[in-house]
Amino acid sequence: VAPLDEFGLIRAWTEGRHTREFLESAGVRLGVGDDAAVVGASSGLEWLLTMDTMVEEVHFLTGTMSEADVGYKALAANVSDIAAMGGIPKFALVSVCVPPEWTAPRMGLLFEGLYACAERYGIAVIGGDTTSAPRHLVVAVTMIGTVEAGKAIRRNGATPGQFVFLTGPTGLSAGGLHGLLERRQSGNDVKAGGGPLPPPRLLQAHRRPVPSVKAGRILLENGWATSLNDVSDGIASEAWEIAEASNVRLALKEAWLPLSGELVSYAGVCGVPPLNWVLYGGEDYVLLGTADRSCEAEMKSRFREEGIPLFIIGEVTAGGPGVDLETDAGKLKPVFKQGYNHFPKG
Amino acid sequence: VAPLDEFGLIRAWTEGRHTREFLESAGVRLGVGDDAAVVGASSGLEWLLTMDTMVEEVHFLTGTMSEADVGYKALAANVSDIAAMGGIPKFALVSVCVPPEWTAPRMGLLFEGLYACAERYGIAVIGGDTTSAPRHLVVAVTMIGTVEAGKAIRRNGATPGQFVFLTGPTGLSAGGLHGLLERRQSGNDVKAGGGPLPPPRLLQAHRRPVPSVKAGRILLENGWATSLNDVSDGIASEAWEIAEASNVRLALKEAWLPLSGELVSYAGVCGVPPLNWVLYGGEDYVLLGTADRSCEAEMKSRFREEGIPLFIIGEVTAGGPGVDLETDAGKLKPVFKQGYNHFPKG
Repeated sequence: VAPLDEFGLIRAWTEGRHTREFLESAGVRLGVGDDAAVVGASSGLEWLLTMDTMVEEVHFLTGTMSEADVGYKALAANVSDIAAMGGIPKFALVSVCVPPEWTAPRMGLLFEGLYACAERYGIAVIGGDTTSAPRHLVVAVTMIGTVEAGKAIRRNGATPGQFVFLTGPTGLSAGGLHGLLERRQSGNDVKAGGGPLPPPRLLQAHRRPVPSVKAGRILLENGWATSLNDVSDGIASEAWEIAEASNVRLALKEAWLPLSGELVSYAGVCGVPPLNWVLYGGEDYVLLGTADRSCEAEMKSRFREEGIPLFIIGEVTAGGPGVDLETDAGKLKPVFKQGYNHFPKG
Repeated sequence: VAPLDEFGLIRAWTEGRHTREFLESAGVRLGVGDDAAVVGASSGLEWLLTMDTMVEEVHFLTGTMSEADVGYKALAANVSDIAAMGGIPKFALVSVCVPPEWTAPRMGLLFEGLYACAERYGIAVIGGDTTSAPRHLVVAVTMIGTVEAGKAIRRNGATPGQFVFLTGPTGLSAGGLHGLLERRQSGNDVKAGGGPLPPPRLLQAHRRPVPSVKAGRILLENGWATSLNDVSDGIASEAWEIAEASNVRLALKEAWLPLSGELVSYAGVCGVPPLNWVLYGGEDYVLLGTADRSCEAEMKSRFREEGIPLFIIGEVTAGGPGVDLETDAGKLKPVFKQGYNHFPKG
């Protein structure tokens, strides 16, 4: 394999992706190509900074996602972290560690997907790094967003009496991945025929997740959310983070959890209890948070106007950090502090 | 291997590393632990953003560097990129992709080294990401620095008649690595005895490089540098970048290149022409730049006062992008546009 021509490849992947007008209006003084990018600082704003990494064989396998999906999702996961603070995503830096199997054309497709996500959310890709790697692709993305000074929505403001909300159904991404891995294990190539594919909506949820920037902005602008997380590691894990940061108990109601019909019927086909995916499945990128009862009516009405789902799924109670689920039968079950294990070893 | 407890490990590696006073004075509103970090924006300043990644088997091997060295250097490489723009390093985000062999104690040592570098340069580590990986450690660092608005030193300002300068000798890191790899290849464990180790200064240069923040600041504050790069990929590669960005020719003089005595004698022992390391060896993290003749005396005097080396190593001439070397014998040799290949395949 010829040595990676780092500079040529970076140019091929990044040049001409943004117009000069877009970069200027975004405050980019200097983008890809020097030792560091330069951006302007605006008064009255604070910067949000986050970093999220995708590793081949851990977050995806050849066949579970196309090259473009990997690029799209690497950026989308970071957009979701900015959304979870109520911010606006602005800039991204992208580091790729490229093994021999990820040829230049394949990497080109990855960057196609990455820039498709950047364009959708108005993000300027302003720098990064490219190195070779012995095995398995790594895509590390840093995202910078803005937020009104002092207004970023944290995890530690939930107090007893407030309600727990969710901005969309969960478990879809985990269901989609489950199907892809089953097909793989049974020897059916994911791209070729053989064996039923998961419903398109579940595949789409896994491969092209939709971060909740608009929902985050509505929550911030109205000061509604007392805590907020994006569902990257599953409701259970995110609820635990809020419970611990706020030192409260989150009591979720099974009957109130949004269930996608497609998910339920596919879970039936697979013989998996859908609640496993709904509670412990990650990467749905909806928002989980808490808000005061006094805001409930106004919140519901505004989300309805915007066409964004809003589900009340439980309430905040006192009594030390914890999360439970009240089942449909009226029993209290503990919700475990665990996230989704993408690729369990056995 | 037990699954990586991401949150527990992140806490173990990052908690208590910075004092509250330091974080406040650094403008950190919210550090590690939420979806994103929050930092304040200051008027009159711009942000520098850069990302640099170290991959096991590409940038280091077990035995060429200790765990703490890997952490230190991962941060130092990014500090150097900020220095190359004349900026002040401020914040870092760190993403690690951890294979099973990198146990929690080994990762703890890595973070010891990383924070040692952070402390030395006054950098707040404000976020990051931790994932597992099937093989080979990856450490991706994003660094954010500040620079006076409009003043960042770029690569494109060199014009004919100016001189080329260098803020320290080069080739030391490459010489050190050469020795480490030779010992490895001959079956001598690097940590155990057997076979001569490279001189300590060369080992130190490879394992604990010293980014040139102070030199960068002096150049920026006085407006002296018309172009500037840090020597991460070797003089040859950095000179080519300046030549191309500025559309000029850089004529380097062999007689003017700084040669470390230790490097020359060790190169003799190894049977390697020292010029190979001096021109094509990377990761010395000194600064290479250009400046106007009218500044020469003042620059020299100021650098002498500060105790920072300053070598004039050539001049800028017209005639399209290119780099040559005038040899001691008075011949002109082309300098190739290539960086150092850490671990050539054969």
